[in-house]
Amino acid sequence: MDRREPPRTEEGLYVLHDLRRVDWDAWRDAGERDREAAIEEGVEYLETHADIEQGDTAVFSVLGHKADLLILHLRPTLEALDRAEREFEGCALAEFTDRASSYVSVAEASGYTEAAADYFDPDAEADPGLQRYMDSRLHPELPDTEFVSFYPMSKRRDPEYNWYDLPFEERRELMAAHGDIGREYAGKVTQIISGSIGIDDHEWGVTLFADDMTDIKRLLTEMRFDPSSSRYAEFGRFYTGRRFAPSQLEAFLAG
Amino acid sequence: MDRREPPRTEEGLYVLHDLRRVDWDAWRDAGERDREAAIEEGVEYLETHADIEQGDTAVFSVLGHKADLLILHLRPTLEALDRAEREFEGCALAEFTDRASSYVSVAEASGYTEAAADYFDPDAEADPGLQRYMDSRLHPELPDTEFVSFYPMSKRRDPEYNWYDLPFEERRELMAAHGDIGREYAGKVTQIISGSIGIDDHEWGVTLFADDMTDIKRLLTEMRFDPSSSRYAEFGRFYTGRRFAPSQLEAFLAG
Amino acid sequence: MDRREPPRTEEGLYVLHDLRRVDWDAWRDAGERDREAAIEEGVEYLETHADIEQGDTAVFSVLGHKADLLILHLRPTLEALDRAEREFEGCALAEFTDRASSYVSVAEASGYTEAAADYFDPDAEADPGLQRYMDSRLHPELPDTEFVSFYPMSKRRDPEYNWYDLPFEERRELMAAHGDIGREYAGKVTQIISGSIGIDDHEWGVTLFADDMTDIKRLLTEMRFDPSSSRYAEFGRFYTGRRFAPSQLEAFLAG
Amino acid sequence: MDRREPPRTEEGLYVLHDLRRVDWDAWRDAGERDREAAIEEGVEYLETHADIEQGDTAVFSVLGHKADLLILHLRPTLEALDRAEREFEGCALAEFTDRASSYVSVAEASGYTEAAADYFDPDAEADPGLQRYMDSRLHPELPDTEFVSFYPMSKRRDPEYNWYDLPFEERRELMAAHGDIGREYAGKVTQIISGSIGIDDHEWGVTLFADDMTDIKRLLTEMRFDPSSSRYAEFGRFYTGRRFAPSQLEAFLAG
Amino acid sequence: MDRREPPRTEEGLYVLHDLRRVDWDAWRDAGERDREAAIEEGVEYLETHADIEQGDTAVFSVLGHKADLLILHLRPTLEALDRAEREFEGCALAEFTDRASSYVSVAEASGYTEAAADYFDPDAEADPGLQRYMDSRLHPELPDTEFVSFYPMSKRRDPEYNWYDLPFEERRELMAAHGDIGREYAGKVTQIISGSIGIDDHEWGVTLFADDMTDIKRLLTEMRFDPSSSRYAEFGRFYTGRRFAPSQLEAFLAG
Repeated sequence: MDRREPPRTEEGLYVLHDLRRVDWDAWRDAGERDREAAIEEGVEYLETHADIEQGDTAVFSVLGHKADLLILHLRPTLEALDRAEREFEGCALAEFTDRASSYVSVAEASGYTEAAADYFDPDAEADPGLQRYMDSRLHPELPDTEFVSFYPMSKRRDPEYNWYDLPFEERRELMAAHGDIGREYAGKVTQIISGSIGIDDHEWGVTLFADDMTDIKRLLTEMRFDPSSSRYAEFGRFYTGRRFAPSQLEAFLAG
Repeated sequence: MDRREPPRTEEGLYVLHDLRRVDWDAWRDAGERDREAAIEEGVEYLETHADIEQGDTAVFSVLGHKADLLILHLRPTLEALDRAEREFEGCALAEFTDRASSYVSVAEASGYTEAAADYFDPDAEADPGLQRYMDSRLHPELPDTEFVSFYPMSKRRDPEYNWYDLPFEERRELMAAHGDIGREYAGKVTQIISGSIGIDDHEWGVTLFADDMTDIKRLLTEMRFDPSSSRYAEFGRFYTGRRFAPSQLEAFLAG
Repeated sequence: MDRREPPRTEEGLYVLHDLRRVDWDAWRDAGERDREAAIEEGVEYLETHADIEQGDTAVFSVLGHKADLLILHLRPTLEALDRAEREFEGCALAEFTDRASSYVSVAEASGYTEAAADYFDPDAEADPGLQRYMDSRLHPELPDTEFVSFYPMSKRRDPEYNWYDLPFEERRELMAAHGDIGREYAGKVTQIISGSIGIDDHEWGVTLFADDMTDIKRLLTEMRFDPSSSRYAEFGRFYTGRRFAPSQLEAFLAG
Repeated sequence: MDRREPPRTEEGLYVLHDLRRVDWDAWRDAGERDREAAIEEGVEYLETHADIEQGDTAVFSVLGHKADLLILHLRPTLEALDRAEREFEGCALAEFTDRASSYVSVAEASGYTEAAADYFDPDAEADPGLQRYMDSRLHPELPDTEFVSFYPMSKRRDPEYNWYDLPFEERRELMAAHGDIGREYAGKVTQIISGSIGIDDHEWGVTLFADDMTDIKRLLTEMRFDPSSSRYAEFGRFYTGRRFAPSQLEAFLAG
Repeated sequence: MDRREPPRTEEGLYVLHDLRRVDWDAWRDAGERDREAAIEEGVEYLETHADIEQGDTAVFSVLGHKADLLILHLRPTLEALDRAEREFEGCALAEFTDRASSYVSVAEASGYTEAAADYFDPDAEADPGLQRYMDSRLHPELPDTEFVSFYPMSKRRDPEYNWYDLPFEERRELMAAHGDIGREYAGKVTQIISGSIGIDDHEWGVTLFADDMTDIKRLLTEMRFDPSSSRYAEFGRFYTGRRFAPSQLEAFLAG
């Protein structure tokens, strides 16, 4: 009953998935002036935060009752993330929203793949391509796609399916095979993987971007038949969103 | 520990099950004029959406406390579905409803059956009958029955009952046997199967239509004794509704 | 991995357990006239519904915070059940209640017992006693006892305890033994068994009536040691109520 | 697959754990006169109910957000318990509280121990000591300690840990060993065991009284290492309270 | 099936994690005077409680929707903890907060390690170093770091992973190995372990302090691969906070 070797990890931008419901009753009842102020301050908040130097902010219309808005923040520090969250409460748009859910995590790269193993090896020669790859994982830019799918997940620790009790080599192979599926969707689906052990209720947040939602559906279906998911994955709730530009906030609120 | 072969799938109309509670306190307190406006705008919303060119919309009275209304939308794009959902909030009826639950999915046909396998085989000859069948699954029309039963479901991934770890052939046989039960209820129960992996919390939405609710009860009871359900199914909540025409909205609200 | 033989079932009256909380704050704040109207309309609603030709309605004071009132409706159609539920919202008493929970099901008799098997056998001779027994299960009258215990339940589908994977004969024996326990409480505890597969979240609703609550407690304790429950039962929440006559509504609300 | 022998049980006083939150916002906003009325009626309610002839009532300040007040009622009938609960809603203090949770059960003695077996044996000679012991379990008096710990619990019915599938003799031994731990804390920790099969969501309520909360913590820690708990116990939520005299209600509300 | 030997434990300061949401709508709507009063009384509450003679109080800004504020209290008695909680409700800041969650526990040292075993051995010579160590665990001072991670946890009692069914010696070894990981993070991560068996819903509260949140993430990741966690740990929700001085309350509320 030995301790298993954990993967090396590197952390980059902190991530907040801020999921909010619109208080449509309040919105319908609001006077023209209050609506205008809410839209103006909302657009300003979203544009200012999208224009920050380090990190990014984007907004999505969420389908179904679980939320109406997903505001996705990436920031270099937890302190900046905390501020981004609280600043929203100071703007007039906040009056018309309630917090439905959220997820806090940090963009993560782990040393399971061979390439990544080199990255974590102090004796390996510097590899600019690898460096760029790692940087794209740790400091991702939000891709300009129409749809997003977000869900938190953990790895199981059950007697027969215990990810954390597998030898490193086995986990490495599982991760490699899992990554192969993802690569088949290159150009169609982009992902941000962010870790949250000790930070939020699951162990990772997964954010997938695509212009065709069925590409995400098919990618995740293929993955579900892969042991990495079929045996070891435990999923939280799934949120589906459609991106809109801050300037479209008025149209979004008009229904 | 190999990856299992996923089924081919084709996706059609996007589906939103929009479950709402009536705020009966507000309704009782509302003045005649407000009620009239709510009914008028509600009827207009429901009729306009039922009359769209692509897709359909229907409304049901839901039994029990979980919801009062089920508004069921089918649309060719997620964008149109998103709009249908938000447009409701703009009509005066919305003032008297709260969102109780929802489900987002997309009508799906999968290549488990032999017939369907042909459909996905680029070398197979075109079969107009098969084409019509697939089209009826991907672009279903809402049948004109009195009752509906909706529930989301997933397949289990437990050590002993792991759907995603079964060989394709075994899943194919299970699906075929499961389909046989459904066929015994042809003419009595109609179904819409919509997939939601990566889109909502379960893996599928199942919507059953019948003029006699006990037909649905018996169909699902038979299915529960079939390994496909007895070993592999994980059910969400069940919603039972009774369809009414948009023009009956006033009668519905009158109690 | 074969499909198991399901029992034959017959369905009778539809059942709604409508569980409501009293909004005591509103009640305390209400003026005398509003209270009187609420009591008057509440009594009228309850008496009218108890007097319907087909089916029955009764009201119970529920102990604990989960609910204050259980209004139990039996009706020949889902449509009548739906109407009974909505009509309550039209009466002034509704203003002082919130919906806490509910359960929708349909009185059911199944062909597990030998007697019942005869009932479902088209070649068997008509047996008036059996017919009366089946009728009492399908169209039960609410017994006039002081206490009620209601809970929904399902049968397990776990690898080692999978009810739906047992051969019919084994289930038949288990049901027979389970029924034997019930018969020991004849005259003390009366039951209504209603099925809800495809209708509500569990598979059955169980409603037990007795003049001494410890009889129900002892009956269920004995049953829990019987394999039918100890291995195969999955219970929902339990609600305990005390019946009162519609005319006692004022006393109930007075505390 | 036989039915196991259930223990004989005897039932005594019915028990209601009524857990309430104080609406501190309303309390802060209340005028002096309203506060005085609430305190006066609250004290009167608590004192009157503590002074009833049969049974008892006590009040505790509950730590943490799950509740602020635990009002613990013991009554000879469910009807009296129901009335005690509803009467509270009639007093002005209720305006400043919301119902957070509750538990309904009945003080219980079971025939697992040899002594108890005698009690249930109609041929055994009357034993005044045993009679007093049983009476103290069935009609317990609330001990005058500072702290209380309340939690509901059930016994597991899992394939490997199935309490209800154990032979009587094995359960008897487990119960005896469990009781031995409790006896080591005699004079430090007092308990009320109340059964709730068919009455509320778990199978028992456990109420522990002590002047030093760490005695309860140590007792339960020891018990957790005993098979009766380590293999067979399923716990609900735990509530920790500090008793105060009705006359201290004003001090309690003053913070 | 014997009872396992429990560890000796010693208890010190009682701990309350008081998690609150800010009612931002109320805050935005509040007049300048009300805000000033809330800030003034809030700062005074926090400073007074941080200055108490025995124990400590600190405040953190919590990320995400689960809470906005964590007020962490350590007190020598449950009575003082209860008072600290209720006193907050008396200050004007409370008007702008709702209770989101909480956890009640008591700082604990257990006799698993050899050093600790000496501490509990009445015949061992007094060891001032050990005494200081034990005292630091039982009467911890809140370290002055920027970040905190709090989560409650329990040990599993499943058939294959049953912590409470392991021999003492095995648990001792698991705890020692687990402690070794923690020691690698000495100087980076500080912890408070508090027990809650019989007091709150889990068995322990774990509070970790660090200036770099990724240190906590890495520590817990390493631990997750250790049998103590991979097989025996059951985690509750995780809360991530950023400490601020009471005097920064105004800045915190300004967004």
